[in-house]
Amino acid sequence: MATEAELIAALSTIFSEHPGPGVEIGIGDDGAVLLPPSTKQIAVADMAVEGVHFRRDWSSLTQIGAKITTANVADILAMGAKPTYLLVTAGLPADFSVAEMIELAQGIRNEADRVGATVVGGDLSVSPVMVISIMALGESESPILRSGAKVGDMVFVSALPGWSAAGLACLTAGASDAKAVAAHLKPTVDYALARQLAAAGINSLCDISDGLISEAHHLSDASQVRFVLEPDFLSASPEFAELSVLALKLGTDVWRWICGGGEDHLFLGTTSDPSVLPSEVMVIGRVVSGRGVELVGKSEFEKVGYSHFQAVVSELPFRP
Amino acid sequence: MATEAELIAALSTIFSEHPGPGVEIGIGDDGAVLLPPSTKQIAVADMAVEGVHFRRDWSSLTQIGAKITTANVADILAMGAKPTYLLVTAGLPADFSVAEMIELAQGIRNEADRVGATVVGGDLSVSPVMVISIMALGESESPILRSGAKVGDMVFVSALPGWSAAGLACLTAGASDAKAVAAHLKPTVDYALARQLAAAGINSLCDISDGLISEAHHLSDASQVRFVLEPDFLSASPEFAELSVLALKLGTDVWRWICGGGEDHLFLGTTSDPSVLPSEVMVIGRVVSGRGVELVGKSEFEKVGYSHFQAVVSELPFRP
Repeated sequence: MATEAELIAALSTIFSEHPGPGVEIGIGDDGAVLLPPSTKQIAVADMAVEGVHFRRDWSSLTQIGAKITTANVADILAMGAKPTYLLVTAGLPADFSVAEMIELAQGIRNEADRVGATVVGGDLSVSPVMVISIMALGESESPILRSGAKVGDMVFVSALPGWSAAGLACLTAGASDAKAVAAHLKPTVDYALARQLAAAGINSLCDISDGLISEAHHLSDASQVRFVLEPDFLSASPEFAELSVLALKLGTDVWRWICGGGEDHLFLGTTSDPSVLPSEVMVIGRVVSGRGVELVGKSEFEKVGYSHFQAVVSELPFRP
Repeated sequence: MATEAELIAALSTIFSEHPGPGVEIGIGDDGAVLLPPSTKQIAVADMAVEGVHFRRDWSSLTQIGAKITTANVADILAMGAKPTYLLVTAGLPADFSVAEMIELAQGIRNEADRVGATVVGGDLSVSPVMVISIMALGESESPILRSGAKVGDMVFVSALPGWSAAGLACLTAGASDAKAVAAHLKPTVDYALARQLAAAGINSLCDISDGLISEAHHLSDASQVRFVLEPDFLSASPEFAELSVLALKLGTDVWRWICGGGEDHLFLGTTSDPSVLPSEVMVIGRVVSGRGVELVGKSEFEKVGYSHFQAVVSELPFRP
């Protein structure tokens, strides 16, 4: 059995190699010492729990580490900011080995490296279920808020949502679809696209972690406007047919995945000038005065979404 | 059963009332937006797990919230810094109620208020065991590091350690001692003393969270010096007799608590000029050249300490 010192030594090796710019003291003191950012600072936190957000029989530890890191940096990117530093706390089984620690840490490091962020500290504890919590800091001159949507804006999404939910449904049903399963177990965030959106001067932005409709509600509530979404724009996506066939195979309605599936880490936002959007981004609706979210012709999906404490997407035992 | 939205609404009420200085956007967007600090920034993170760090049959939710917050801000104070912002992630039972959420959040808020910090964000998840992780940010012109101890320094501790471990032993044995039990369930950090130490120009500092000897090793390792601790200085403390009687009653050696007990959140440090220390601080030894920690005349306690993944303090089932 590994000692805490051995586990921390393994972590230090992985995380201290490249301390990153602005890190005066990284892992090893009571806290990290960071040089002050020159811009505004963004702070986010996310927790992932074994059996809720991941299963060890479905995912490798490297995938688990990468997935929770992705969820965190996506929140920073959704503010139009650049991720800088991460702190990681982990509750681990008492028999967690140094080899397992290295796998988990490598998954975190891989994603942090992709986006140029540095792990500067954290904490380990024993825990009967594995729990990982990451807190990320980021920097931005002018963060893009949920509250910035304006009447007359176009609503856009960075790709067709639903692939992560489809992957979860495949895993649950024992069905195989490599693309969907990978979307669930190894979600990727399009960092280049996120940077383009941040630079484009859009009005509002968020990351789709709890489902398209749920996040549209977040934007419309924060901005005190109404979102009118057109399913036809979503079904015009080149991936729609592929996802629909998979839904048919699994006996579910594809709109349940598209509207309610989270963890794709796509971006939902609004802009007054759609010409500034990168070409792969889809316009899917418009912002009007009023409140709430309308899904034209598909009102039965207007309430679909995920709540941890009251699972609305009842067919999904784990977080979509 | 509460919905996630209801739980978050309860949290927002408690945490958003006083958004605090420097908070441009608090809870409610993908992330918090903070104005950049004018000094260096300190970042720490701590995780507390039900059954490891706390028991719900021993502690109220308000106490649990306060205790984990105390552990975090103590780490910031141990860097000689001022706590500013907190992010809180919590894994909670599926049937967690709004009333319970308010109790837990109020405990966090109470401690944050005491030290002038603001909760600016976080995340909730369901979890089969309750887990709380806090990240704290702080600010300091010149952080006090573990690596600053110098040959010739005097070693000091802010009070007699061991009361939290004694309280845990009481709870485990079903014995009653109001002072010890309170030290374990409601640990307090002496914020005024921490500020005095930060202003005193001392050479090194840390928070005793894993036990006196263990933390002395952290300082001596980081500073590449040897700590020679004199038990006589500790037994000269006015509280020593009281703690010894309790240890006798519970059939343990008081030095086990003093040397190995953590979570007292006292401060251990070194200074080249003991006259700068506040009067209640005890000098307990000196820094010499070499490596390691010596406990003069009590070498049997030189290895006492707490490791999550290999419990050395074997009589303590929970984290001391």
